[in-house]
Amino acid sequence: MSKVFVLGHKNPDTDSICSALSYAYLKKETGMEAEAIRLGEMNNETIFALKEFGFEAPRLVKRVSEEASQVILVDHNERQQSADDIDEVQVIEVIDHHRIANFETTDPLFFRAEPVGCTTTILLKLYKENGVEIPANIAGLMLSAIISDSLLFKSPTCTEQDIRAARELAEIAGVDVDAYGLAMLKAGADLSNKTLEDLISLDSKEFEAGDHRFEVAQVNAIDVSEVLDRQEDLEVLMNQQVTNKGLDLFVFVVTDILNNNSEAIVLGRRSNIIEGAFKSSVVDNRVLLPGIVSRKKQIVPVITEALS
Amino acid sequence: MSKVFVLGHKNPDTDSICSALSYAYLKKETGMEAEAIRLGEMNNETIFALKEFGFEAPRLVKRVSEEASQVILVDHNERQQSADDIDEVQVIEVIDHHRIANFETTDPLFFRAEPVGCTTTILLKLYKENGVEIPANIAGLMLSAIISDSLLFKSPTCTEQDIRAARELAEIAGVDVDAYGLAMLKAGADLSNKTLEDLISLDSKEFEAGDHRFEVAQVNAIDVSEVLDRQEDLEVLMNQQVTNKGLDLFVFVVTDILNNNSEAIVLGRRSNIIEGAFKSSVVDNRVLLPGIVSRKKQIVPVITEALS
Repeated sequence: MSKVFVLGHKNPDTDSICSALSYAYLKKETGMEAEAIRLGEMNNETIFALKEFGFEAPRLVKRVSEEASQVILVDHNERQQSADDIDEVQVIEVIDHHRIANFETTDPLFFRAEPVGCTTTILLKLYKENGVEIPANIAGLMLSAIISDSLLFKSPTCTEQDIRAARELAEIAGVDVDAYGLAMLKAGADLSNKTLEDLISLDSKEFEAGDHRFEVAQVNAIDVSEVLDRQEDLEVLMNQQVTNKGLDLFVFVVTDILNNNSEAIVLGRRSNIIEGAFKSSVVDNRVLLPGIVSRKKQIVPVITEALS
Repeated sequence: MSKVFVLGHKNPDTDSICSALSYAYLKKETGMEAEAIRLGEMNNETIFALKEFGFEAPRLVKRVSEEASQVILVDHNERQQSADDIDEVQVIEVIDHHRIANFETTDPLFFRAEPVGCTTTILLKLYKENGVEIPANIAGLMLSAIISDSLLFKSPTCTEQDIRAARELAEIAGVDVDAYGLAMLKAGADLSNKTLEDLISLDSKEFEAGDHRFEVAQVNAIDVSEVLDRQEDLEVLMNQQVTNKGLDLFVFVVTDILNNNSEAIVLGRRSNIIEGAFKSSVVDNRVLLPGIVSRKKQIVPVITEALS
């Protein structure tokens, strides 16, 4: 039981997977028996990135407490986004760039959150603070996470620090950022092998606001209509989630990664707040979200505010 | 409203006051209009430290939202230990070394917590990371906080990092750590000008565990019996607090700073957990706590566990 798991959130995105791998490497270099794991299936973008830099997928572990007594969380802190049995293990570190909520410990821990666009931007600092050299393939993973979270630096969550970190990591990895970045994003926007269930669950996160529970799922696409043309069937699946999870609101966001706009399907008994919150008309459960690409910065705070 | 307040917890101790002053200085040096404030009266130890290094007390501000829209918390994160109107302002940073609980934001922030013995041990790193030189008098404040929180390095909360930081800060401040440290701790243990109400409130913190609410107050003393001989009158005041605040448990800890033991008075409807939790007999609401000096490491987790 001396092994420490390093894990990102459920429905892992590229940052969650690459941060877990990159931080586990750093912890091993500084003497901890750490293993990166994942809580769910990887998306096409992440698969592309791991293949590019020669990594195997981290092991899929559903119940962390069966194999470890201590864990490190990367890219998340909210309990409902973590392993189902997170309360049965000790969280000894958190490295994150999200809001803090539903997180509580009985003992002091190492908690490093910064308002930057990507977890690996913080990890780059930790490598330097610990005097550990970053191998080229790890730098490639860390760069991939920044490109993913920032949509190639176009998301409003992207900071100067993320851009500087990406430049530094690209140099170490020996990668052309724009060419590699676009190829990776396009791989992620290839939804051809995804079922409708995949679409609403692969990159989905649950949140709480006051007494309300809401979920926001997001997919990146080159052609938004390819997804939204299947609205009727998507709504059936979304309504099942609303019922099964007791959600007050389910927002499914389809983001056009070339033009940096989104369009969403909104369901649930509190979907009535969407029109006022985003100042955009909801027609047939659909709403246009011009200029909106970031769940964290442009969607969740707006819904939280409206529901509270 | 562009000013940012830097504040420690209610019933401020030396770390809360000195961290607020030291971090406000760093933030000002890096371009922020920051002001250290305090939420309550200072204890004799802190007054001694501030006088030694030529500082005025930070301004007493009870309602932070009347003057600032943004705050930085040092040495605490739990809402009930902060300003009463903390929910009306935005917390933009937290620098802390305690467990994390009852803390929630709508937006990402800079949150730096480390499992070290003192907040200023973390601040020393932040000075270095920001490339800001520490003036001798600020180094003296930061050193005072470490001596206070670690009881001159004898508390189990004290880490190697705290000892190294103290050595480095003593060098900058030009201070003999042992001589100054003992004088400062003795000033703090001088309870001659304290009322009984002061004793149970000056260094008191509230906690929640499950549905239970408990409070742990602590005083340092050279002669423990000087305090505990007044048990009868102390209990009257403690029972008032139990009633007024709806506490399930109130623990008043008197710590012998020369021998590193404590003795406590325990009241409240859940005081029945104390005997089992600390494996020590409770006689006439009194319990001996041999080797126990740290509320954070040796008392709060034990009570939290027993109440949960």
